[in-house]
Amino acid sequence: MQTSHGFAAPGFDNVLELFESFLVEDSGYSAQVAAYHHGTRVVDLTGGPDMSPDTLTGAYSCSKGVAAMVVALLVQDGLLNLDGTVASYWPEFGAHGKDRLLVREALSHQAGLLGLEGGFGLDEFTTPAAAERLAAAKPTWQPGRQFGYHALTIGILMEELCRRAAGESLQSLYERRIRKPENVDFFLGLPADLEPRYRDVLYQDPAGQPWLDPLSLDGLNSNAPVSTIMELPNIRSVRAAGMSAAGGVGSAEGLARLYAAATTGAEGEPPFLTPGTIDLMAAEQVWGLDRSSGLDNAFAVVFMKPHPSRNFGSHRAFGHEGANAALGFADPAYSLAFGYIPRRQEDGRTPGRAHRLASEVRRSAAALSR
Amino acid sequence: MQTSHGFAAPGFDNVLELFESFLVEDSGYSAQVAAYHHGTRVVDLTGGPDMSPDTLTGAYSCSKGVAAMVVALLVQDGLLNLDGTVASYWPEFGAHGKDRLLVREALSHQAGLLGLEGGFGLDEFTTPAAAERLAAAKPTWQPGRQFGYHALTIGILMEELCRRAAGESLQSLYERRIRKPENVDFFLGLPADLEPRYRDVLYQDPAGQPWLDPLSLDGLNSNAPVSTIMELPNIRSVRAAGMSAAGGVGSAEGLARLYAAATTGAEGEPPFLTPGTIDLMAAEQVWGLDRSSGLDNAFAVVFMKPHPSRNFGSHRAFGHEGANAALGFADPAYSLAFGYIPRRQEDGRTPGRAHRLASEVRRSAAALSR
Amino acid sequence: MQTSHGFAAPGFDNVLELFESFLVEDSGYSAQVAAYHHGTRVVDLTGGPDMSPDTLTGAYSCSKGVAAMVVALLVQDGLLNLDGTVASYWPEFGAHGKDRLLVREALSHQAGLLGLEGGFGLDEFTTPAAAERLAAAKPTWQPGRQFGYHALTIGILMEELCRRAAGESLQSLYERRIRKPENVDFFLGLPADLEPRYRDVLYQDPAGQPWLDPLSLDGLNSNAPVSTIMELPNIRSVRAAGMSAAGGVGSAEGLARLYAAATTGAEGEPPFLTPGTIDLMAAEQVWGLDRSSGLDNAFAVVFMKPHPSRNFGSHRAFGHEGANAALGFADPAYSLAFGYIPRRQEDGRTPGRAHRLASEVRRSAAALSR
Repeated sequence: MQTSHGFAAPGFDNVLELFESFLVEDSGYSAQVAAYHHGTRVVDLTGGPDMSPDTLTGAYSCSKGVAAMVVALLVQDGLLNLDGTVASYWPEFGAHGKDRLLVREALSHQAGLLGLEGGFGLDEFTTPAAAERLAAAKPTWQPGRQFGYHALTIGILMEELCRRAAGESLQSLYERRIRKPENVDFFLGLPADLEPRYRDVLYQDPAGQPWLDPLSLDGLNSNAPVSTIMELPNIRSVRAAGMSAAGGVGSAEGLARLYAAATTGAEGEPPFLTPGTIDLMAAEQVWGLDRSSGLDNAFAVVFMKPHPSRNFGSHRAFGHEGANAALGFADPAYSLAFGYIPRRQEDGRTPGRAHRLASEVRRSAAALSR
Repeated sequence: MQTSHGFAAPGFDNVLELFESFLVEDSGYSAQVAAYHHGTRVVDLTGGPDMSPDTLTGAYSCSKGVAAMVVALLVQDGLLNLDGTVASYWPEFGAHGKDRLLVREALSHQAGLLGLEGGFGLDEFTTPAAAERLAAAKPTWQPGRQFGYHALTIGILMEELCRRAAGESLQSLYERRIRKPENVDFFLGLPADLEPRYRDVLYQDPAGQPWLDPLSLDGLNSNAPVSTIMELPNIRSVRAAGMSAAGGVGSAEGLARLYAAATTGAEGEPPFLTPGTIDLMAAEQVWGLDRSSGLDNAFAVVFMKPHPSRNFGSHRAFGHEGANAALGFADPAYSLAFGYIPRRQEDGRTPGRAHRLASEVRRSAAALSR
Repeated sequence: MQTSHGFAAPGFDNVLELFESFLVEDSGYSAQVAAYHHGTRVVDLTGGPDMSPDTLTGAYSCSKGVAAMVVALLVQDGLLNLDGTVASYWPEFGAHGKDRLLVREALSHQAGLLGLEGGFGLDEFTTPAAAERLAAAKPTWQPGRQFGYHALTIGILMEELCRRAAGESLQSLYERRIRKPENVDFFLGLPADLEPRYRDVLYQDPAGQPWLDPLSLDGLNSNAPVSTIMELPNIRSVRAAGMSAAGGVGSAEGLARLYAAATTGAEGEPPFLTPGTIDLMAAEQVWGLDRSSGLDNAFAVVFMKPHPSRNFGSHRAFGHEGANAALGFADPAYSLAFGYIPRRQEDGRTPGRAHRLASEVRRSAAALSR
């Protein structure tokens, strides 16, 4: 007696069972989960009172993984060299000793530019003005010597590098070269006519939480003019602009399809990334204690890498988690792509629900290939 | 109905409220807390049965931050170059491959000289003999390649560098150039006539605790001839000598005034450090797992830097915590200086009482500057 | 009323007391513990229903410490240079950018060769074929830039280095140069005639545990064709081959005697390692978060070093723990050698039973030398 909508292909029944068990044990739980295996959709499930298969909602930092696909295309096209300096594309960035920072270092949270004292305007994040201010900033640490999650500014870095290397905005490149041709139900810039499909992310009221010092590393990291960064995708102008750090909006199916389209191709189409590009983008750049959060983290170029506290895939997997525990990744070792989006904010990291579902998907794929 | 002594200026009422709540929930709690904002004293509170505004007590490693102010003066005077080698000032130190260790590395816990097998004599710590023995020692790790808290020996390093670079003891320099002219109620060497103000630190009897191997890294770190390093300031000869690692004695008001005098100036006087010196001394040198404690730590030159487990200030703050959870720091981002000293040893690190009070002080300052 | 077999010499009574307390509080507990002090056996105790003084059982990664004694001999003989590259002994190893990796780096878990996708055959581990496959592999990370426990492959590395540097197998070298002449009751390759002394390690059925992705870093680390690596020593062919990563079998007395024979000499014989060799082998190479486990770890060349979470000895100690919490180490600072082997898998790391016993042994030795 399936209470969720959608399907799990033969061999992936255990994913359905686990998802249904979540629905049974928590009547308020609503989520979508999807997976592709060798380019074919094998899981597409939606459950709970507050979500339908058609629902789009915020996926927070999963947006970074989506935006990184554009970076990957520029690398593949030869327009962006990961081993080049940021300043070679963007001379102003070289201020305050940042002239030798490499693109792959800047895009793996090593720049030391967590945020600016005073913060960014809400509509400033996706503009060249934000990039100009960031370029002029003094880094918090010696660039390339340590790493710490750049929750919002990594989007500014990616977006300016796109403007400089390709002469086009990241959002436009994503729409033109990836989302439309690959028919991906995930948006960096949600068109007005799709607004009726959007449902607000449900999250905990920050009022009862300890004061976050806006000038602490953690505070700099989230220095947007909102009471909590959880608000971001729920603001129309943010999801319309599609800020690549946290403004993406979509369905779990869309996330899974994007990672499939990139790595295995989706539904018979060729993948849009070559194995060589995937190797470059999935290579781990940093691992250890993150200066921003104090927790362990591992990053490739933009993408998160699996590690014991965020154990979403094999050693070849790459993807990104969001603040609401949404998760999207590709796992080339299993020819898998995965997407998960809950309606209500929940705990991420292992052993969160997304990670347990991802484990079942991989276990199914491993059993099928035996 | 205020049950504490002292005052909190308008805008800092929430600090008073929080402090009073500590007094209410724990009838044995006694402590002092003080803060300066833009050089003006805005908080000066004492509460509980075992402390008066006049009380001086031990502040353990807060002493390191006090001593580091002397180091900062020598840097400012051009007598000490943080990027020079220790051996350039102190040739004997170069033994056993320590010849290339920089001053800023040695003073940020990277020397690998946690202690000596056999330990130091109680009256030896502040003498050139201790420095001579330390200079001759073989480091536990390759100097400059990792870091671990040098609980006692960093004092020996600071003191010998003062003798070599300035030809005067650290304690004498502190007294002559900082404590007297700035009228600071914190002593590296408590004069006999102030002894009546001293009250013993109250701490847990170490008898029931697991055996500390004196030859483990943790044991080397505290190899003084005492049953626990908590004893140190309670021994008259130690607080008379004013060992810069852990023998300082004072009031919370003294700690706060010192950090104010250094960075904003106190009560209308100019600051004794220039912005350039502050930048050099407050720049983070190391961050990550500390080889001595196995916990995360972050250090500038001598001073502790805020990080998620010791979240006392903005990214520009610098200071030091003591083993009894005393805390002193400056936060240039808010033009703040802060001091906290409890009578009875308590838990430090975030979210200890010192950190909660420091957070309220910063929140008040942030609100006032809006 | 002693319920254990064996003895504790005068001054080591507290070790006996602690061991007896373990037996009293857990009726199913069975274990052996032994120690040498200045080359003399001072503790040799066996207790519990499932173990006799004559019992041999698996010690898992304690085997690595045993095998490392052979590496130490080759270093002492001048046949192996820890600062030489692996490829200088084993040219094929240089593939995929591994050509500059030093022997001491490869043997301290920095190679990035946690395992191979597809795994090794059970009888392949101790063969040149395994080494050939490993040499051809692409590392998971840039060799020498980070470290992560190589649970099984470090054995392959040690064994091939022995073949290349000495022209003889590690197991044969161990038998000929160490085990026989030193009369050590610990075997890398258990002879058939001693099989009657072997008792299976008792361990938790892995069936109820979360799925271990064989292509995750943790899965690669244990990619043997078994349901859990806990099975390994219980398989006759594995303990017959004596795989140096995890196939060693012995008694606690054997482990203790080995470390004594190496460092102080056992029962009046000279030590087989010189102080210079001990310094080279006991020098810490890496410390911090382990990429494989996500936990803190510290390694010398092969040997584990003490650190806060694995606090088995002084800063000079070196040894190795096993997956069943068996432990063997030498502590030159106290002229001690220690062995512990439980029959049933238990929790290792501090404050496990092995660590509490090791602490009592050191405390006794410290008191005796006062």
